[in-house]
Amino acid sequence: MTSPTESRPVDYDRVFSQAIDRLHAEGRYRVFIDILRNKGMFPNARCFAGHNGPKPITVWCSNDYLAMGQHPKVIGAMEEALHDVGAGSGGTRNIGGNTHYHIDLEAELADLHGKEGALLFTSGYVSNEATLSTIAKVLPGCIIFSDELNHASMIAGIRHSGCEKRVFRHNDIAHLEELLAAEDPATPKLIAFESVYSMDGDVAPIHAICDLADKYNALTYLDEVHAVGMYGARGGGISERDDAAHRLTIIEGTLAKAIGVMGGYIAADKTIIDVIRSYAPGFIFTTSLSPVLVAGALASVRHLKASSEEREGQQASAARLKAMMREAGLPVMDSTTHIVPLMVGDPVKAKKVSDILLAEYGVYVQPINFPTVPRGTERLRFTPGPTHDEAMMRDLTRALVEIWDRMEMKLAA
Amino acid sequence: MTSPTESRPVDYDRVFSQAIDRLHAEGRYRVFIDILRNKGMFPNARCFAGHNGPKPITVWCSNDYLAMGQHPKVIGAMEEALHDVGAGSGGTRNIGGNTHYHIDLEAELADLHGKEGALLFTSGYVSNEATLSTIAKVLPGCIIFSDELNHASMIAGIRHSGCEKRVFRHNDIAHLEELLAAEDPATPKLIAFESVYSMDGDVAPIHAICDLADKYNALTYLDEVHAVGMYGARGGGISERDDAAHRLTIIEGTLAKAIGVMGGYIAADKTIIDVIRSYAPGFIFTTSLSPVLVAGALASVRHLKASSEEREGQQASAARLKAMMREAGLPVMDSTTHIVPLMVGDPVKAKKVSDILLAEYGVYVQPINFPTVPRGTERLRFTPGPTHDEAMMRDLTRALVEIWDRMEMKLAA
Ligand SMILES: Cc1ncc(COP(=O)(O)O)c(C=O)c1O
Ligand SMILES: Cc1ncc(COP(=O)(O)O)c(C=O)c1O
Repeated sequence: MTSPTESRPVDYDRVFSQAIDRLHAEGRYRVFIDILRNKGMFPNARCFAGHNGPKPITVWCSNDYLAMGQHPKVIGAMEEALHDVGAGSGGTRNIGGNTHYHIDLEAELADLHGKEGALLFTSGYVSNEATLSTIAKVLPGCIIFSDELNHASMIAGIRHSGCEKRVFRHNDIAHLEELLAAEDPATPKLIAFESVYSMDGDVAPIHAICDLADKYNALTYLDEVHAVGMYGARGGGISERDDAAHRLTIIEGTLAKAIGVMGGYIAADKTIIDVIRSYAPGFIFTTSLSPVLVAGALASVRHLKASSEEREGQQASAARLKAMMREAGLPVMDSTTHIVPLMVGDPVKAKKVSDILLAEYGVYVQPINFPTVPRGTERLRFTPGPTHDEAMMRDLTRALVEIWDRMEMKLAA
Repeated sequence: MTSPTESRPVDYDRVFSQAIDRLHAEGRYRVFIDILRNKGMFPNARCFAGHNGPKPITVWCSNDYLAMGQHPKVIGAMEEALHDVGAGSGGTRNIGGNTHYHIDLEAELADLHGKEGALLFTSGYVSNEATLSTIAKVLPGCIIFSDELNHASMIAGIRHSGCEKRVFRHNDIAHLEELLAAEDPATPKLIAFESVYSMDGDVAPIHAICDLADKYNALTYLDEVHAVGMYGARGGGISERDDAAHRLTIIEGTLAKAIGVMGGYIAADKTIIDVIRSYAPGFIFTTSLSPVLVAGALASVRHLKASSEEREGQQASAARLKAMMREAGLPVMDSTTHIVPLMVGDPVKAKKVSDILLAEYGVYVQPINFPTVPRGTERLRFTPGPTHDEAMMRDLTRALVEIWDRMEMKLAA
């Protein structure tokens, strides 16, 4: 007789272990770094790395781009909601979980993007997945045209729609037109793209894409996750800055990055909002956002509509850090936005630089490896904000130059 | 020349409007009711229905089952986190968004279910979708056996796995065995089911299903969303109550119902947690739960591990309300749990009863219609908790009897 384990025709444990082994073999196994931010003193934080006690660090890779996660108005609004209505919503939007806060924030977001309506989701990921999969299902035979660098959540939504997909080369208008022109004019079409691509920091040509959408009668879906709050006079994103919001069918955003809280949304005309609200399982069958989060996001969006100080501070910080890195000969990549990527080009080295920065310099920046970026373009991605000051930048640049030197990596002359 | 609109080969507006018209035609178009809870006084709340000012109501359909959303420990912990670390996490778990709170809560949840590890997601929906779609993809050729009443989020995960699926009749062990026996023993298998089914209030035979899993060498996935916090000596769910947790491969739960906050999780052995953590896009590519929510959930889980008062209060309330309704001749359905469903059997009547309750009696209970339940079984679903007192129940029962009478619906003798 064999033991129960030996006699099993499928060895699940082995399959799972092999899946993990593959990651180790490729150098892609990830270990979470354990941190706590110091509210009011961001980018200062504490790191719990198993050493003796927490160690102070400077965070250089947060997507709380404008430090709104510690803004007194945001904290105050959340505290008030916590005491007024409690911790959670207690239900889905349809069943008990629709609060006055949700309605107010949706109205505020619709206004921000100049649209008739908006709809909240539990995250930006879910807003992309739920909206793209649902809208394309409602349009029989729809073909989705997707930028090759689109975020995983958009790719998930497109896949789950079950529609055909055409991938166009990143920001390549000529290629997009070629693909659009190849299809039957009577076929419903949707072009899905981002405004700021967060790993390179480049920006989509929104008007040129909308011109093609007009010409080929396609709908447009724009992910403004890395631009909302940060671009445009009121923080409406690149589509506001470029005066293109009215040309887009659906604008999607997150409440978890520049807004500083958590959650996601879309803005569009009333009928489309109604369709997604009524048909998207990812919207319907889940507890709605905690009113505490909604209250915080509402305060943040309202503040950023009226105040440009944070946006200007961020742009100044990004420009300063890019200049300092360039001057030091560090391989800072071309970015026209607030994102400052530093090319390493090797996953092991990128991890090593990041490890040394944390252990020796108290600098926290996560290495960005495949599959988030293509192999051979592994990098460090810095996100300076209004609260990163010049002294921090000088320390950072000096640390990087020392490490570059120690690891015998090339600096520009 | 035709106008731009007339010349368009696809009329998107018409397609979207028709999608909405279909819902109106079927009486399934939903209007959100706009409420705010009164923290500390739940189930009391305010309803904003366009009348003059907010109107006081009693909430009877919340999934904040134990009123933990207003528990002083939960509110206190959230307030502390808000002031200590701020509003949002600022990043994904891999990139800047892994806080000490997340790690502590995962350890607490692993312990709650007697598993080696746990993993947090932004919601229970996402935990089901991400885990089921990912685990099955890692197991080549896996077949998923799914209870016919499984929640939409499990169905989404199963569909997105791309695996074959066999649906077994609700809680029907003989049918499940028939389906298992029909497959090749060498094929990986996963049985996915819930413990408490939330629309009927019945419970799965966990041990019998685990017996079949042993016999046919299948993995098991149990959704304990409507049981966590409420069953078992420490709130570990039906799998704790029935002493079956150790037999299950993966236990999934939410932080948004009895725990009173927001978020979702799985608990399983270390390798499986590592696989999901490393491969599930719905886990990797999204901002992690706000530390404020995590702190609140942590306080709630810890409290419910040690205190049975809320569980006992809920069970007593549910028993009392069922008895009162039965005594009054109301068609309360058979439920062995805290859920009290009242059969109406018609979507228009269910909505009408609910409308009258809100407008005339200040009672808020949402009608449950297709597709949440099968057509012809439309119902009202009451969720009495420890804070619903006897006077509220008397008022509710009296109101229902009056409405039943007025609408000439049948009462038992
Ligand atoms: C382009 C893009 N879209 C969507 C998301 C998801 O947003 P959220 O973090 O709110 O889920 C992200 C990152 O997280 C992103 O980079
Ligand atoms: C059985 C079941 N699983 C999962 C979920 C989703 O959980 P959450 O609300 O945390 O997304 C729900 C309800 O919302 C549910 O009823």
